[in-house]
Amino acid sequence: MNRTLEQLLRNREAELRDRHGISFRITGIASRRLGWIADPTGLNVEHVENVERAPLRQAQGKLSRASGKSAPHATNVRTWLEAAQAHILFEASSLNVQSGQPGVDHIRAALEHGAHAITANKGPIVHAYRELRDLAVARGKRFLFESTVMDGVPIFSLFHEMPTIQLRGFHGILNSTTNVILSEMESGLSFEDSLKRAQSLGIAETDATHDIDAWDAAVKTAALITVLMDVPIRLDEIKREGIRNLNAEAVRAARKEGRPYKLVCRAKKTGSGVTASVRPEQIALTDPMSQIAGTSSYIYFETDIFPGLAITEENPGLYATAYGMLADFVRAVGP
Amino acid sequence: MNRTLEQLLRNREAELRDRHGISFRITGIASRRLGWIADPTGLNVEHVENVERAPLRQAQGKLSRASGKSAPHATNVRTWLEAAQAHILFEASSLNVQSGQPGVDHIRAALEHGAHAITANKGPIVHAYRELRDLAVARGKRFLFESTVMDGVPIFSLFHEMPTIQLRGFHGILNSTTNVILSEMESGLSFEDSLKRAQSLGIAETDATHDIDAWDAAVKTAALITVLMDVPIRLDEIKREGIRNLNAEAVRAARKEGRPYKLVCRAKKTGSGVTASVRPEQIALTDPMSQIAGTSSYIYFETDIFPGLAITEENPGLYATAYGMLADFVRAVGP
Repeated sequence: MNRTLEQLLRNREAELRDRHGISFRITGIASRRLGWIADPTGLNVEHVENVERAPLRQAQGKLSRASGKSAPHATNVRTWLEAAQAHILFEASSLNVQSGQPGVDHIRAALEHGAHAITANKGPIVHAYRELRDLAVARGKRFLFESTVMDGVPIFSLFHEMPTIQLRGFHGILNSTTNVILSEMESGLSFEDSLKRAQSLGIAETDATHDIDAWDAAVKTAALITVLMDVPIRLDEIKREGIRNLNAEAVRAARKEGRPYKLVCRAKKTGSGVTASVRPEQIALTDPMSQIAGTSSYIYFETDIFPGLAITEENPGLYATAYGMLADFVRAVGP
Repeated sequence: MNRTLEQLLRNREAELRDRHGISFRITGIASRRLGWIADPTGLNVEHVENVERAPLRQAQGKLSRASGKSAPHATNVRTWLEAAQAHILFEASSLNVQSGQPGVDHIRAALEHGAHAITANKGPIVHAYRELRDLAVARGKRFLFESTVMDGVPIFSLFHEMPTIQLRGFHGILNSTTNVILSEMESGLSFEDSLKRAQSLGIAETDATHDIDAWDAAVKTAALITVLMDVPIRLDEIKREGIRNLNAEAVRAARKEGRPYKLVCRAKKTGSGVTASVRPEQIALTDPMSQIAGTSSYIYFETDIFPGLAITEENPGLYATAYGMLADFVRAVGP
């Protein structure tokens, strides 16, 4: 449960109630800083967040005052879910490329507790999709992850709406940070200054290694392959090359000659499995990918029924990612 | 129930059964030529279709032989639905711009009979959406129409997957015939020869008035507004101008100067309602619409969460439209 999602939920509270018959109460918050906070009668997120900004010891005092009683602190995800009497877990831990943890454990715990699990973390899909999917089915709960690829654009749900369709391949631009960096390099900045600019815009994290070395795009590619092609693929099976070795002059020259660089994700079904890559490619101007600038993203699906079905997300708004979790929430508990 | 849909249903029969738990039997066929044919034990569509090609009197004899008994002929849609013991109606009557008939009557009859109604005809949406939607809800049945806009691309279902989202406007290219004609004019043909070519490719009908005068695109625009913005709009409220008065030279000059003509549908929410237009516009090359060629189509949605969300359908395959009805079938009766 992050702050943007909480704001969006409040903003849509009336509509969720009136149009979808859904009401909710936030009964647990957890973060590295705060630990596991739960109150089945409801938490005031703003209080808790304010408290989070203060030093931890002081924070706990404030929280107790705010709720007028001692705030129950759980010690791990399972006791926390119990204490919160959770029906839904919104999981937004950071990506661990190698293991998908702690996301996998959180989701497993939620499903075993009897809650729906909604995640914005793509690691668990790559590392434990089949286990978590089957566990969700066995418990009669939902495991949903629409915020993991292309912000909250309902890519996975779109395929749910296309029964019996065969996905043969796809390509696209799925990482904003590298796309912004490439755009900035084209307009004159060095790689380092482009990265700094992406960081100052709040697009790139302080440690942007995951983006620059194409881990983020590779994990998204693997997630799409795993779920939409139903072919489990390991990350090391995806040819991966980041943009670290592109110099700004080459990037500008490529744009000038009408074949700009983009970090392109590709997957193609083969007889026995899937081949996939994420790497900088020079793109013809007639290809819509050449026009995908800044934080926009793009995916082109090849299917048996629709030979080419493409989705473009232009300049996603502030709530685009949180929205995917809200939509998953409605999918999980709506009528 | 048209032949392409029947072929697609057969082609996907095993998957519908194994993955979606759906089995089916075709118990009724109706067309202007054949009248209302029903057999609750199942009809052999190929037989019936072969018969359709023969003169009518002979045809009935053949049909009786084929089924080994006198084929029950109903006299109208209601007795036909009864005789067929229909659970689903696939409605594919032609567009009547002024009234939406006979589609509206067929769908109303199906819902009142207690069947789900699936239509590829956009007329009923413009002329009777709210009535049919409410009737479907009252009867606990589905009224679905995913084949009406952009072939079978799940546009309406996509919005179903985006709860609480606000659609503020859209623009796009939604009519293939005029898009093919404009492409052919750009490559050197006259308007008349471009039209003939579109007809010989099986894209334009013999009477292409609906396409050329932008009725088809206007009805699609009205359908999107009616369903996705929940604002009922009359066709005469949409500014409509076809491509009949564009001459080939102007079309070629426009492409040459980098601002090609496209027949563009537009809608925008205003304070009190919606303004909408369908007319030829000159499009900048930086706009993806300029690249939409031949039978491809495109739509760009402006929403509160996703400022720009676009879908491109490139070169739809033979089964693209029928597929929308198959997907509606799964939506209606799947688990």
